[in-house]
Amino acid sequence: MTERVREILGWYGSDNPGTLTNLARLLNSGTLAGTGKLVILPVDQGMEHGPARSFAPNPAGYDPRYHFELAIEAGCNAYAAPLGFLEAGAREFAGRIPLILKMNNHDVLLDERDPDQAMTGSVREAMRLGCVAVGFTIYPGSAHRLEMYGRIRAIAEEAKQNGLAVVVWSYPRGSGLSKEGETGIDVTAYAAHIAAQLGAHIIKVKLPAAHLEQDAAKKVYEKEAVAIGTPAERVRHVVQAAFAGRRIVIFSGGAANKDEAVFDEVRAIRDGGGFGSIIGRNSFQRKKPEALKFLSTVMGIYAGTVK
Amino acid sequence: MTERVREILGWYGSDNPGTLTNLARLLNSGTLAGTGKLVILPVDQGMEHGPARSFAPNPAGYDPRYHFELAIEAGCNAYAAPLGFLEAGAREFAGRIPLILKMNNHDVLLDERDPDQAMTGSVREAMRLGCVAVGFTIYPGSAHRLEMYGRIRAIAEEAKQNGLAVVVWSYPRGSGLSKEGETGIDVTAYAAHIAAQLGAHIIKVKLPAAHLEQDAAKKVYEKEAVAIGTPAERVRHVVQAAFAGRRIVIFSGGAANKDEAVFDEVRAIRDGGGFGSIIGRNSFQRKKPEALKFLSTVMGIYAGTVK
Amino acid sequence: MTERVREILGWYGSDNPGTLTNLARLLNSGTLAGTGKLVILPVDQGMEHGPARSFAPNPAGYDPRYHFELAIEAGCNAYAAPLGFLEAGAREFAGRIPLILKMNNHDVLLDERDPDQAMTGSVREAMRLGCVAVGFTIYPGSAHRLEMYGRIRAIAEEAKQNGLAVVVWSYPRGSGLSKEGETGIDVTAYAAHIAAQLGAHIIKVKLPAAHLEQDAAKKVYEKEAVAIGTPAERVRHVVQAAFAGRRIVIFSGGAANKDEAVFDEVRAIRDGGGFGSIIGRNSFQRKKPEALKFLSTVMGIYAGTVK
Amino acid sequence: MTERVREILGWYGSDNPGTLTNLARLLNSGTLAGTGKLVILPVDQGMEHGPARSFAPNPAGYDPRYHFELAIEAGCNAYAAPLGFLEAGAREFAGRIPLILKMNNHDVLLDERDPDQAMTGSVREAMRLGCVAVGFTIYPGSAHRLEMYGRIRAIAEEAKQNGLAVVVWSYPRGSGLSKEGETGIDVTAYAAHIAAQLGAHIIKVKLPAAHLEQDAAKKVYEKEAVAIGTPAERVRHVVQAAFAGRRIVIFSGGAANKDEAVFDEVRAIRDGGGFGSIIGRNSFQRKKPEALKFLSTVMGIYAGTVK
Amino acid sequence: MTERVREILGWYGSDNPGTLTNLARLLNSGTLAGTGKLVILPVDQGMEHGPARSFAPNPAGYDPRYHFELAIEAGCNAYAAPLGFLEAGAREFAGRIPLILKMNNHDVLLDERDPDQAMTGSVREAMRLGCVAVGFTIYPGSAHRLEMYGRIRAIAEEAKQNGLAVVVWSYPRGSGLSKEGETGIDVTAYAAHIAAQLGAHIIKVKLPAAHLEQDAAKKVYEKEAVAIGTPAERVRHVVQAAFAGRRIVIFSGGAANKDEAVFDEVRAIRDGGGFGSIIGRNSFQRKKPEALKFLSTVMGIYAGTVK
Repeated sequence: MTERVREILGWYGSDNPGTLTNLARLLNSGTLAGTGKLVILPVDQGMEHGPARSFAPNPAGYDPRYHFELAIEAGCNAYAAPLGFLEAGAREFAGRIPLILKMNNHDVLLDERDPDQAMTGSVREAMRLGCVAVGFTIYPGSAHRLEMYGRIRAIAEEAKQNGLAVVVWSYPRGSGLSKEGETGIDVTAYAAHIAAQLGAHIIKVKLPAAHLEQDAAKKVYEKEAVAIGTPAERVRHVVQAAFAGRRIVIFSGGAANKDEAVFDEVRAIRDGGGFGSIIGRNSFQRKKPEALKFLSTVMGIYAGTVK
Repeated sequence: MTERVREILGWYGSDNPGTLTNLARLLNSGTLAGTGKLVILPVDQGMEHGPARSFAPNPAGYDPRYHFELAIEAGCNAYAAPLGFLEAGAREFAGRIPLILKMNNHDVLLDERDPDQAMTGSVREAMRLGCVAVGFTIYPGSAHRLEMYGRIRAIAEEAKQNGLAVVVWSYPRGSGLSKEGETGIDVTAYAAHIAAQLGAHIIKVKLPAAHLEQDAAKKVYEKEAVAIGTPAERVRHVVQAAFAGRRIVIFSGGAANKDEAVFDEVRAIRDGGGFGSIIGRNSFQRKKPEALKFLSTVMGIYAGTVK
Repeated sequence: MTERVREILGWYGSDNPGTLTNLARLLNSGTLAGTGKLVILPVDQGMEHGPARSFAPNPAGYDPRYHFELAIEAGCNAYAAPLGFLEAGAREFAGRIPLILKMNNHDVLLDERDPDQAMTGSVREAMRLGCVAVGFTIYPGSAHRLEMYGRIRAIAEEAKQNGLAVVVWSYPRGSGLSKEGETGIDVTAYAAHIAAQLGAHIIKVKLPAAHLEQDAAKKVYEKEAVAIGTPAERVRHVVQAAFAGRRIVIFSGGAANKDEAVFDEVRAIRDGGGFGSIIGRNSFQRKKPEALKFLSTVMGIYAGTVK
Repeated sequence: MTERVREILGWYGSDNPGTLTNLARLLNSGTLAGTGKLVILPVDQGMEHGPARSFAPNPAGYDPRYHFELAIEAGCNAYAAPLGFLEAGAREFAGRIPLILKMNNHDVLLDERDPDQAMTGSVREAMRLGCVAVGFTIYPGSAHRLEMYGRIRAIAEEAKQNGLAVVVWSYPRGSGLSKEGETGIDVTAYAAHIAAQLGAHIIKVKLPAAHLEQDAAKKVYEKEAVAIGTPAERVRHVVQAAFAGRRIVIFSGGAANKDEAVFDEVRAIRDGGGFGSIIGRNSFQRKKPEALKFLSTVMGIYAGTVK
Repeated sequence: MTERVREILGWYGSDNPGTLTNLARLLNSGTLAGTGKLVILPVDQGMEHGPARSFAPNPAGYDPRYHFELAIEAGCNAYAAPLGFLEAGAREFAGRIPLILKMNNHDVLLDERDPDQAMTGSVREAMRLGCVAVGFTIYPGSAHRLEMYGRIRAIAEEAKQNGLAVVVWSYPRGSGLSKEGETGIDVTAYAAHIAAQLGAHIIKVKLPAAHLEQDAAKKVYEKEAVAIGTPAERVRHVVQAAFAGRRIVIFSGGAANKDEAVFDEVRAIRDGGGFGSIIGRNSFQRKKPEALKFLSTVMGIYAGTVK
């Protein structure tokens, strides 16, 4: 147990030893074990965007076992997926990598102004499958957000009672926000804070842009001269918004297409004090050797072995 | 226990022995026992379309016992029906054919743009009636889909705890889709994937057409040159979308009217690696001797005894 | 126990001995005991239409005890009413006539295009009051029908576990149907079939008219030349639609005003193989001696002692 | 135990001894003990209309203890109020007067066409506070009425199991009715009947006017020449509508402002066979000595000691 | 235990000793211990307005531990916050200051005409974290108010059974009210009364303005010449509306910006018989030394050591 992991666990003083054990498992797995940094492989895109859009570029990914293997071989801290994908490999790969059951999901077969998600898992299912944590998406800005907050709250309570950790995907979206606002720095920091207040141990947000969405917030950012000019500064601000850095905040990529741009984002996350990345499509939509190399570079940046 | 059945059961590593036992019963019943292929007789059309539209062409079908007899004599792997129909024969035919309780249903006495289904059964009822599985319809594309996913998830959890298998009818429909889109290959593959992610053991979809409904999907199909030109290729793609063939996917007929066209569809399912057919109206809307002959040909195609 | 009652009980092979016992009580009570025919007195009109519209023509009916007495003296098989009416006499008349708790109700103080009903009873209340069965109304054709089906399903499951029988009033109504369609023969047969599929032991529908409401159904009725020309033929068709006569189907009157017209309807029900009548207003809206005479004639027609 | 109280208890043959005991407590308390007549003090106007509108005319009424004292000193049969008001005096006045927990409430901070009420109490709370009964408002005529009926049904079942009595305030209101219709005699009688069918032991309605709201009802009232010309006749009709007088029906005042007009109403209730009054604002919005005198006259009219 | 605290506890005669113990803890903590006055630090603004708007002016406040320290050092009676903020310090500061779990919350990422709040805590969570009370916001005037009342009722019942106290934030808002009406004296008094009727032990309202919102109320205020001219008179009226002063009513600031104006408000609360203040932004949005000085003055005014 490294000093850094011990320190991080110290932030979660209200949790029972069971949850701390599972948080420790997440932090002590894979290439980045013990560093306090995390790279997680999430694969729910088949459900979210459809199977061909997700897996046709690298058809090996149609097979649920592929993603277990990829996450293990790449040295990820954890693998996160919906019920079906986890069920299809949990026995074969039992004990080889921490699992996160993504408990709600959305598809794109209907376009809504105010999106919601379907409940596709349960805490009991997560325990049946040997998971260390449950994952849940909220959409701050959607007309359904209050119900979504209520649902994750109840699930988080049950998860914590059962010694699981709670990961919240906080994705601003819906009629309360402009398209640009979804990744605005004020909105992203707000989204991270909401997830923290709802009791998340680990918070996932998108890498924010410099845009300021809400007038009332804009005034404060300007008056107080909050530093949000560079990606690293924005990461630092979001981490600060999540209880002054005392909650684990990880980031998913922005619109970056080129690997080098992704690596730059990772550097910004690292420099801003972020805790890591959750990288889906950039991982599983290329051939495995390339994916392993790509993820190795990402982890190297976090570990300090790659600049 | 054949090697093939053993292989198929191996895909369901997260299920308990009770569920595997019931899956094995399905795979080891009737004419196709042990082949890994399935032909299931479903009779919920009385509820879905009305009794006269369903049974007037062959009035013997008004009697619930008829369908038990038909399924048994034809050597089907299972008989699927709503509560009332199963209740009306479960004692008389106990132990003679695996039963699937169709747990939700819809009628056509009101036309909705975004359809939903009524809950007409429960896991407990399925157990009371000696069923091996529960069946459930979802409508991807309907405004009610998220709730439907949530319902089947909860039911599937309960069913699996009680050692039952879960069959999902995944029928794209609703305001998110054009009429043509309901059987588009992208939508059908997506529908099969959703059912798999929701934890279905057996997935039923319609035989897809070559139509591509969603622009974002279309681009990928074209860029990656996914093979969807022939019915068999489309079957293969749908099977691939359901966890690279590691979930049982069966098909219902398209608009085929002539027997020979149905047989061609069956050949396409067979050639594309599909696991079988679920054939309702084509079975029970003709006299029993003709139905038996018709189903015998279908099973022969799957078994390889008919070309 | 007559052969006919034994035969009827044989249709309900999935029910426990408790439910069969209560079905037998219904079939073995009153004037028609043992014949397999039923005449039931239902008095929920006070709730459905208001007290004065229901009871002012024969004010004795304001008193809940009156209806118990009427049903007993007339030799009805059972008396069906909402909670309040049953509570007001269940102790005094305990054990003298089978009771059916009407568990949902509607009033006319608000006019809706798509009607629903309030839950006004429970299975536990039915058991507290010594009932043999619960009664429940569904409105096929209403936008609320799917929820109604779900409710009766859950109630029926609980009722059967507790050894009660289940009576479903299936009344097509709502925005899916024209006014004429509510009693169309296709719709009535469909409504009876739905009730049977939902697990009803006894189904109550209105005596249908020759009207065909749905185009898709009309084509089949014409193509298959389904006999629906006379009232008796229509009764026969509805009975057939309810599992080929293996469910008890009873009828309420149409618009008949004159007694002789009612008797003709009863003859049609008898000739068409119907199982009996449920007669409310025609029974309790006249003086008791006249009501007894009227009901005696009805029962005589069923028993064969009146032509 | 007077003969009259024994007779009244005899109407509730389906209730357990616990509920009869609490009904007897209500009937055997205060000035009118044993007469079968009731005067109840209800104080929920603070919640329903606001505190100043309710209590500024007699500021002593801001103090919850005042109403306990007033009810006790006046010799009322019971005191009815929402949770907070009862909690604030139940210990101090324990055992001195029967209490009724008003379990749902409405405020006027938002004006709705179809009103509903908030659940503000529970059966368990009623038992914790030593109440003899629960009270509940329904709004026949409102689009929410079916849900309200369902709620009171469930509460009544629980209350009766726990030996409490059930009082229903039946107030026609909502988009199904004209303003005048809310107190129409047909609607009031209907409202009383609905409450009785829902299982109420005691029913509270407003003193009705001669207006007939519904055409279908009007025809019957005219054809059958139902006597509704005088207030006493209307009371008699409403009492008849509540199971021919076998349910306790009490009345709240109409628009009467002058005491003499209220006394005339009370005389009409008495002469029409009503069971008493529920008098709020006329009691607590004047100084206590005046209120005691006022209530003494009311009770005298019921007791026969005042003409 | 001072006489005053003993007196206050005497108002809550229906509560169990557990709840009284926790009320006593609130009243006997901090600088104002034993005086019957309260100053509470609430920090839910991060969730309600966003983190930067809340904490950028004094970035120390991003750290959840800061607010525990501030409340303890300032001698507040209690610290109130949502789940996440309490979880992040409850172990470190266990036993050092009474905690109130704010159980529902709202954000401003979507603007609604009729606001509601998400459930973000539970009674069980409050007990896990060692809280003395739960806090809950209602919005009288919102179309969601009836549901909100129902929710807090159920929560309050559970909290009281478990020996917790109940604090209700009663904030008029929504389509039933004008903007000015939200702090109108009639509406504020009404809001306090509603909270009291719902069973709150402690009620928090905004310091009201002289505006009268509702016509029916205005007439009574004018007719009865209710004194509402000065802030202290309005405080007195609100306290009176909450059971004649037998419920603890505390106030949050109006629009005051200058400290002196806040102190004047505090003097008005004191002079009007209010029980104290709940002061968020004015406390944590300045440097700690200034905040301590500011709060010391506030407490001094209540304690009588500052004029």
